[in-house]
Amino acid sequence: MVGNHKKSHVVIVGGGFGGMQTARSLAKEDVDVTLIDRRNFHLFQPLLYQVATGGLSPANIAAPIRSIFERQKNVSVVLGEVLDVDPQQQTVEVKLTPTDRFENEVDTIQYDYLVVAAGSTNSYFGNEHFESHAPGLKSIEDATEIRKRILSAFEAAELEDDARRRERLLTFVVVGAGPTGVELAGAIAELARHTLRHDFRNINPQDARVIIVDGGDRVLAGFNEKLSAKAQAYLKRLKIEFQFNSHVTDIKPNLVKVKHDDKIGEIETETVLWAAGVAGVPLGKRIAAATDAKRDKAGRVVVESDLSVNHFSNVFVIGDLAHFENDEGDLLPGVAPVAIQQGAYVGKMIAEEVIGDAELMDRQAFVYKDRGQLATIGRSAAIADLGKLKFAGIIAWLLWLFIHILSLAKFQNRVLVLFQWGFNYLTFNRSARLITEPGNGNDLRAEVGKSDLDQPQS
Amino acid sequence: MVGNHKKSHVVIVGGGFGGMQTARSLAKEDVDVTLIDRRNFHLFQPLLYQVATGGLSPANIAAPIRSIFERQKNVSVVLGEVLDVDPQQQTVEVKLTPTDRFENEVDTIQYDYLVVAAGSTNSYFGNEHFESHAPGLKSIEDATEIRKRILSAFEAAELEDDARRRERLLTFVVVGAGPTGVELAGAIAELARHTLRHDFRNINPQDARVIIVDGGDRVLAGFNEKLSAKAQAYLKRLKIEFQFNSHVTDIKPNLVKVKHDDKIGEIETETVLWAAGVAGVPLGKRIAAATDAKRDKAGRVVVESDLSVNHFSNVFVIGDLAHFENDEGDLLPGVAPVAIQQGAYVGKMIAEEVIGDAELMDRQAFVYKDRGQLATIGRSAAIADLGKLKFAGIIAWLLWLFIHILSLAKFQNRVLVLFQWGFNYLTFNRSARLITEPGNGNDLRAEVGKSDLDQPQS
Repeated sequence: MVGNHKKSHVVIVGGGFGGMQTARSLAKEDVDVTLIDRRNFHLFQPLLYQVATGGLSPANIAAPIRSIFERQKNVSVVLGEVLDVDPQQQTVEVKLTPTDRFENEVDTIQYDYLVVAAGSTNSYFGNEHFESHAPGLKSIEDATEIRKRILSAFEAAELEDDARRRERLLTFVVVGAGPTGVELAGAIAELARHTLRHDFRNINPQDARVIIVDGGDRVLAGFNEKLSAKAQAYLKRLKIEFQFNSHVTDIKPNLVKVKHDDKIGEIETETVLWAAGVAGVPLGKRIAAATDAKRDKAGRVVVESDLSVNHFSNVFVIGDLAHFENDEGDLLPGVAPVAIQQGAYVGKMIAEEVIGDAELMDRQAFVYKDRGQLATIGRSAAIADLGKLKFAGIIAWLLWLFIHILSLAKFQNRVLVLFQWGFNYLTFNRSARLITEPGNGNDLRAEVGKSDLDQPQS
Repeated sequence: MVGNHKKSHVVIVGGGFGGMQTARSLAKEDVDVTLIDRRNFHLFQPLLYQVATGGLSPANIAAPIRSIFERQKNVSVVLGEVLDVDPQQQTVEVKLTPTDRFENEVDTIQYDYLVVAAGSTNSYFGNEHFESHAPGLKSIEDATEIRKRILSAFEAAELEDDARRRERLLTFVVVGAGPTGVELAGAIAELARHTLRHDFRNINPQDARVIIVDGGDRVLAGFNEKLSAKAQAYLKRLKIEFQFNSHVTDIKPNLVKVKHDDKIGEIETETVLWAAGVAGVPLGKRIAAATDAKRDKAGRVVVESDLSVNHFSNVFVIGDLAHFENDEGDLLPGVAPVAIQQGAYVGKMIAEEVIGDAELMDRQAFVYKDRGQLATIGRSAAIADLGKLKFAGIIAWLLWLFIHILSLAKFQNRVLVLFQWGFNYLTFNRSARLITEPGNGNDLRAEVGKSDLDQPQS
């Protein structure tokens, strides 16, 4: 079905920043491109925390992959999950997942070039049992689950008579002081201090505590100390508390155990969010096994200087799943600009080799152009490190806003998001704070349907 | 916890149009109001079909109940499900549902006045086993489920080699030719003919068939024959097919059996949507049992002329759950204007009696002011019956649009919806067409977390 390509066939796994850019770079080339993703939409992950805190709707930060490529006729989109790769046969095995209503077919797709941009997932460093008590933030479903947990903690506190449990319900622990942890903590604090201020009758949402736990000694350790200190000062103004040099040793439904200087303390809480680490998706393991490539501790596939995998010159791994060190020996971070530049690099290289202008031996090593980094902390606050230029505050935030809005994949999203944000900014409103029940809504209704009309009385 | 009210305590069950209006009518009165709903948001049901077809996001048509009442300090909102009513003791039994993570408490709440506006649910007329194959459209979860089914049918067709199954996947059956059925069918047809036109490589979405099955002989039977015929002509132009005087006798995963003139035919399809009937929620049965009131065949509680229930002058049932006949003996339809007027009527009556200006015997019967009805059929088409004035087409649609946008509960939603619609209208775009998996996203990730890092190789 997807077979029989007369032209060179480029198979891309993953519709994130890396995969999308690879496909776009091949827009004018005489190749067939198949883009495989488990989901039918491209997700703008940098704004996922806004969905998790009710500021934006899922559709605001997602764009249907098919509509992105509707005019690029050399791209076919396949909804499926890649189970395995055979680099000798040049095939990938795909479980087709167009619908969960029926059994999924498994298909084999032949490739000439394979670009794996399958991304990363949350990592609990061997403590996978933490997950049910402390969801991470990687997918739309994660975000709506976290949104539900945060909002329902306030709801439960409003109904609670017991002062101790009420305090526990109003305590939010975020594990990890990286960008995601800081964004989440900042957004929860704003939700409590502003948005929900007048919403309850028995509790004062402003009493809520937000605690960041991190193994390091400062927030946003990817930035220099001065910027990091500025971010921390801003978070303190939002009354966010910190436990640094501290490691989470256990998470239970109503408490977190934290180890600090060999002493173990407890934080009573019913809402823990995990932003402490990511790892390459499991497909990385299959690729490493099939190609005899190495993986790092976080499960990323170690790639060559041209992003190919261990002597398989037509198999590339890019983005969050790739372990690539620059000339200084630094591992490139798992951020969108790296994935985008790698996608563009691989796309261009494939195009040149297909046309015949370039030979394999000509391949130039990938070089990442670091244009700097930005992190947002909250409403109108961010930090920016643009190399020589380092600054914090509202200018950094406006820059962050501008770049993110520009990057959103589809025009409509840009304007809608800008509008929704502008409104939220002026009013502290968060209109998307819906508690939705995955599945339960239907279950409830099923019950209703059965029990109700068995004995109509009229 | 919710007990000990010194003022008169008005308990309202349900945050739909009726319940909201009752609470609002009591804004300036010296009473305590407790509004109980299972969900934390008010849902603007008339636009639910837009969510089901990817035109709007859930948050566009929902507003957090707490934020609606944040300034009305005499309203307390309780997230819970009313299980039973004891009109002698003047109490309701509520299962508190702030979160599904822990066991739910059951609480008893005392009332002086009880207003039940708990609404309706889908009815399968005793064929509840149809439900898993043919979801109805009542909740946000229903809408995202239907959205997933419609979109994933196109995705499955794109991958299908077998021509017969491909046709089956591209056949959509809507059971019921009332407003919801017509809106859904129209939106699916537009999705297929316009929005998805360029999205696929192996199928042509314009080949999709949309079939409406109904027991009557025309669409929108609540309107007169002329308007109904106009609506039908418009739907025909969208290539929607009709099977009238036909009853669904069975629904299986890949076909629908339809009885017409004692002959049973089959339609091969994998997507069936149910818009054929509604019934009062199960709580109606409990109320009828507790007050010895009658229910009609659809499970609605038959109410007195003052909307109270069978001699319990402080218990009211309003909105979709109430069976109220006007002076001509016609049952009032389950639409928002009826619920809103009933809510205002009951709120005003309670206020007057609490102040002491009015006695029970003074109660005037509720009279519904019918300002006419509107139904939308698709992009820029609607029909309007405003009593003497009856018309169809774009003017009716603009009127429909204007009224619905005005009615949306919160300012932001109005403007966002207007914007999103304007954009959709100009471009046939539907940006909210996400296939989201209730729960599955998390399950997938849980698997990933477990299988991935057991053997890191670096």
